Amino acid sequence: MSQISINERNTPEQEIGIMKRKISENGTEVVSNGTTKKHKNDVEYFLSYADVELHRTMIEDQKRTNTYRDAIMKGAEKWIKGKVVADVGCGTGILSMFCAQAGASKVYAIEASDIGLHAKKLVEANNFNDVITVLIGKAEDLELPEKVDVIVSEWMGYMLLYETMLPSVLHVRDRYLKSGGKMFPERAVLHMALGETQWITKYEESAFDFWVSLQHLYALDMSILADHAVTKYKDTVHVHMVAQEDIMSFPTVVCDLDLYSVKAEDLAEITHEFSLSSMGNRCLNSLVLWFDVMFPEGVKLSTSPDEEDTHWQNTVLTLPDCRVKQDSLVKGTIKISQDDSYYRHLKLELEYSVDNQEMIRRHFKMDDNCVESDS
Amino acid sequence: MSQISINERNTPEQEIGIMKRKISENGTEVVSNGTTKKHKNDVEYFLSYADVELHRTMIEDQKRTNTYRDAIMKGAEKWIKGKVVADVGCGTGILSMFCAQAGASKVYAIEASDIGLHAKKLVEANNFNDVITVLIGKAEDLELPEKVDVIVSEWMGYMLLYETMLPSVLHVRDRYLKSGGKMFPERAVLHMALGETQWITKYEESAFDFWVSLQHLYALDMSILADHAVTKYKDTVHVHMVAQEDIMSFPTVVCDLDLYSVKAEDLAEITHEFSLSSMGNRCLNSLVLWFDVMFPEGVKLSTSPDEEDTHWQNTVLTLPDCRVKQDSLVKGTIKISQDDSYYRHLKLELEYSVDNQEMIRRHFKMDDNCVESDS
Repeated sequence: MSQISINERNTPEQEIGIMKRKISENGTEVVSNGTTKKHKNDVEYFLSYADVELHRTMIEDQKRTNTYRDAIMKGAEKWIKGKVVADVGCGTGILSMFCAQAGASKVYAIEASDIGLHAKKLVEANNFNDVITVLIGKAEDLELPEKVDVIVSEWMGYMLLYETMLPSVLHVRDRYLKSGGKMFPERAVLHMALGETQWITKYEESAFDFWVSLQHLYALDMSILADHAVTKYKDTVHVHMVAQEDIMSFPTVVCDLDLYSVKAEDLAEITHEFSLSSMGNRCLNSLVLWFDVMFPEGVKLSTSPDEEDTHWQNTVLTLPDCRVKQDSLVKGTIKISQDDSYYRHLKLELEYSVDNQEMIRRHFKMDDNCVESDS
Repeated sequence: MSQISINERNTPEQEIGIMKRKISENGTEVVSNGTTKKHKNDVEYFLSYADVELHRTMIEDQKRTNTYRDAIMKGAEKWIKGKVVADVGCGTGILSMFCAQAGASKVYAIEASDIGLHAKKLVEANNFNDVITVLIGKAEDLELPEKVDVIVSEWMGYMLLYETMLPSVLHVRDRYLKSGGKMFPERAVLHMALGETQWITKYEESAFDFWVSLQHLYALDMSILADHAVTKYKDTVHVHMVAQEDIMSFPTVVCDLDLYSVKAEDLAEITHEFSLSSMGNRCLNSLVLWFDVMFPEGVKLSTSPDEEDTHWQNTVLTLPDCRVKQDSLVKGTIKISQDDSYYRHLKLELEYSVDNQEMIRRHFKMDDNCVESDS
């Protein structure tokens, strides 16, 4: 037997995708020298961002990279040219370099992972030494020598909030953003809709087909493992694209964050009461979540199923199959909170009813395992 | 940005492949009540086997499952019928049930992970309660009530030795196998050959194309990241199928284990001096490893690139590109040893020369990260 394995032959590109998921297991206690004492898993978190392949995936996501670039270039005259910028979690420094190209007078590029060492070399290779200063360390611990006019940051995780990186950006905002300064992005909206997600059904069918087929192949009844596999699958949060046609309601806004005013405390627990009306006679089997972020000058980055795929994909909470009709009403509450054992992971608590029938309660945990299961 | 992500949309089947890789991070010290005190990572190791999807992958590997079944059925009259069997690391219990079908009078099915609880239910569902006894615990810690005629075990990891599960089987052999008893499998051979592995070249090209393309796309020179990515890729052990045509020498036998006589100590460090002669005028870029195991009655399971794919795939050590001619001689030594920090991981030390030119030294570590990167 072999511990970790799949049958498919992966392309090199797929391999790389998989490679990004590795996170060192050597977590040791991190005690910062600044204002924060964070979880030991932060070592793993920052190590994962030290991997160049992860940055390739992010930069290769052209919708992400081009939208940031568009926002910076469209806002160049008004907001960037001659201004001081902080890039929080700069990674390879690509957004900092866009700001330099857009005429920023100074960019502080902040990065806690070792990819920052590469960012330093890239800044040099592109002759931006006089504009960009790469600062290696956690945003909460660094001292900037001056206030900034603009904060640029690509802090969004799966389902917007996974990773809980936004508080680091808000920390820099509160300490260093000048009054009237600009945030890129400046607003973030998390959406949720009803779904009849086809790949859930396909997974279920495939699990049943497989475990039941062993009766025929080997005269063995192993069908109980199908139930077990499906139960486990349905308890897991899935990060995966959902087809546009699998969405079966208008979306509800789970949260709408004004990034000038939102506080880290507001993010620790988000509760939303929803009422979603189904379209058509279908089988509800999921709630589907995605986000949009907005930049100055009307530039928007959307990860909606209606739009081109992004590496964030969609986030799917599976529900017990339920037949609904046109205008069936799905009412309930979703609570998203930081996980007790590690603040970058999320806890999702859901309760809902369909057409005022019995209340259904579902609990999910969004951690690296969940995310690794699909993405 | 998003920590863990790929662009491709995976099929549900691929998702499951990826899902198998998750290993809990909550490792706590394991102190067994028996003869062994093993590493805390064993908690993760056994947790990974608690996942039903991993067992699906193994059982779905028809070459693996059918070869074990063939071996048991072909050996039924002579070795299994009316005999007492131990199945070490039984998983779902499928091999134990094959033995019961083949007429074993008694099967002790030993399993340390929670999948053993499912094995118990499956034994019941298939009415093998009177034949099969599932014992939950580590093989080293369990007391069997009698000696056995046969040991069946599917203990092979990537590159045969990854996971270091064989010593547990040998422990049971030394304590419980009757004199003249049979091992299924009874012999294991690890092979190695020269490779011109095309997907290494493709990965390199793709990394360079991507990082250099940013000059054109964004007027940014990020080419240094290509070197970094390729260096990292080449330092990693890759578990991946290699095409038959990518093999460019006859194989050498790295080790040939007689499972009746081999000792756990023999496995802790294996050193092999090799001399491989290249076929054709090609570019040597890798060493490729695979294994065969042999059962009584001439049944053989081969994971060679010449044969149908298995979930073990092949194991690839990358080498600096080197042009060779027909009959170029690659001479050297490979040492495979258990990793100091965790005995289920492996350390690979290689030194070799091509046509008596300068000696090249390469060190690799084979751990879950390496394996996750490709499989």
